[in-house]
Amino acid sequence: MTKLSSKLDPQIKNATIIGAGAIGLSWTALFLANGLKVTINDPRPDIEQTAITGIKEVIPGLNSLGYDMENFANNLYFEKDVHKAVATADIIQENGPENVAFKQDLFASFEDYLKPTALVLSSSSGIPSTIFTAKMKNAGRVLLGHPFNPPHLIPLVEVVPGERTSKEAVEETLKFYTAIGKSPILIEKEITGFVANRLQAALFRESVYLVSTGVVSMENLDKIVSSSIGLRWAAAGPFKTFTLGGGPGGLPHFLQHLGPGLESLWKILGDPHFDQPTVDLLIKQVNESYAKTPYEELTKERDEQQLAIMKSLNK
Amino acid sequence: MTKLSSKLDPQIKNATIIGAGAIGLSWTALFLANGLKVTINDPRPDIEQTAITGIKEVIPGLNSLGYDMENFANNLYFEKDVHKAVATADIIQENGPENVAFKQDLFASFEDYLKPTALVLSSSSGIPSTIFTAKMKNAGRVLLGHPFNPPHLIPLVEVVPGERTSKEAVEETLKFYTAIGKSPILIEKEITGFVANRLQAALFRESVYLVSTGVVSMENLDKIVSSSIGLRWAAAGPFKTFTLGGGPGGLPHFLQHLGPGLESLWKILGDPHFDQPTVDLLIKQVNESYAKTPYEELTKERDEQQLAIMKSLNK
Repeated sequence: MTKLSSKLDPQIKNATIIGAGAIGLSWTALFLANGLKVTINDPRPDIEQTAITGIKEVIPGLNSLGYDMENFANNLYFEKDVHKAVATADIIQENGPENVAFKQDLFASFEDYLKPTALVLSSSSGIPSTIFTAKMKNAGRVLLGHPFNPPHLIPLVEVVPGERTSKEAVEETLKFYTAIGKSPILIEKEITGFVANRLQAALFRESVYLVSTGVVSMENLDKIVSSSIGLRWAAAGPFKTFTLGGGPGGLPHFLQHLGPGLESLWKILGDPHFDQPTVDLLIKQVNESYAKTPYEELTKERDEQQLAIMKSLNK
Repeated sequence: MTKLSSKLDPQIKNATIIGAGAIGLSWTALFLANGLKVTINDPRPDIEQTAITGIKEVIPGLNSLGYDMENFANNLYFEKDVHKAVATADIIQENGPENVAFKQDLFASFEDYLKPTALVLSSSSGIPSTIFTAKMKNAGRVLLGHPFNPPHLIPLVEVVPGERTSKEAVEETLKFYTAIGKSPILIEKEITGFVANRLQAALFRESVYLVSTGVVSMENLDKIVSSSIGLRWAAAGPFKTFTLGGGPGGLPHFLQHLGPGLESLWKILGDPHFDQPTVDLLIKQVNESYAKTPYEELTKERDEQQLAIMKSLNK
């Protein structure tokens, strides 16, 4: 079914997706693309049709990454009983509601039905596994595999072990995501927002400040990012960028000469809030710009550019 | 000399570069690539040799962007007398030391020697034109054209008018930079750090916090950025990203549902300082990672990836 399946450990054959909203379906498609048999566990009555439709929508992107998605439906199963759904799974990827009590009950409910070798992964962006495994007897093979949306397209998966997660499970998780073409990165502490969302929030805070104070328009701020720091960070992250910014003297030279200026800039960065005038201004500007283009068209344009960049970087 | 020179207003023939360090030489090369006659004004005794060497270093990048740099030296001139250097210039791009008194005296000193139609642009990242033109009689055609390093490669130029800059001069500046293949963006207020450097500082502050608190290693943070938000922002800036993140409901839907979570994340973002333990940790990590690769090799790798991305986006 795919030219990339050979990278997967042959022991890993069956995956179960719990919760098949946009994130769950994107994982489903990627798992199918990598030759896994995938069982969807989702309570919606129309889940079979919804899943097929949702997977078909992401096929062009997967084809563009080199995956063959013909006959994907042959490996796709549906099981509404979560106990049965997890019973043969080597990989479970959970994408349920971001609700602590719900997740705690869910994980405890299927614990006794798991294969001992199963890896249990959650896409949660907000609830660390130390919290949601609280009612489980054994959480050694449970951890977070937090994707950046959409999972089938964006390489990053933040891998965040909980207090009880075993080292072996972390290693197997990094290996699994790598085998299916992702770029998993280990996060050492269960900090709120993990890394990518915190960095994104930091940049967005200053973006809102600059637009709300009239320094630059929303569209122009986006153009600035895409034509400078976005481009740069796609090629080299912030530390590599500033290491090179220090010239042959590297990061020590950079910190010595530009560190003080950077720190004084930190002191005057903005502290905006989503109060009514700010929200009104943002909505006014988006109505005059992006909202004029249909959502599907904007998304397609973004995804095509994304894929073009990834191909240019061989990511 | 170049296939792109035709986009330039035929009235614009002569450019003068004041201060030919790395930024000045990068501008010089780009101006030459676009068919301008370029005069370098720089006090160093070995400037002719230094300039030729520096320009040759950036030729591969310019070739890769489609510019023909053969015979570039035929259009390159040197003039140590600043009055003579600016006398025939249609464009002046200043890249002198970031020193208020120096710049004020410099700009006032050559004012009377300019062609009335000359555009006078400064690459300053820190001193706005309202300040450095303080001793000039007429500052109507003086403003900032702040590049993102290196100017010949990165598309962005932040165009920042001062209090006395005329609207016509702003329009002509945007037109000029566009004609030579840049992506100029108008900044409406002379705010410290302008836009790109403030956004970069905001993301770097949180990056330093996450590395200094042991959440993630420096190299892994860079990988996270390059495999998620960097990729994304190269294709679509932060507002476009969150507009699409709101689904068909767009930015209003996003702000309503995810705004509160984002604002609570803003409240807990880190507030690091470049104190000795932080600097020591960063230098230790860079010594164990990037510093092991020679500077030239790292730069080449970064620039090649940068160019590949730009080509994939047709930027």
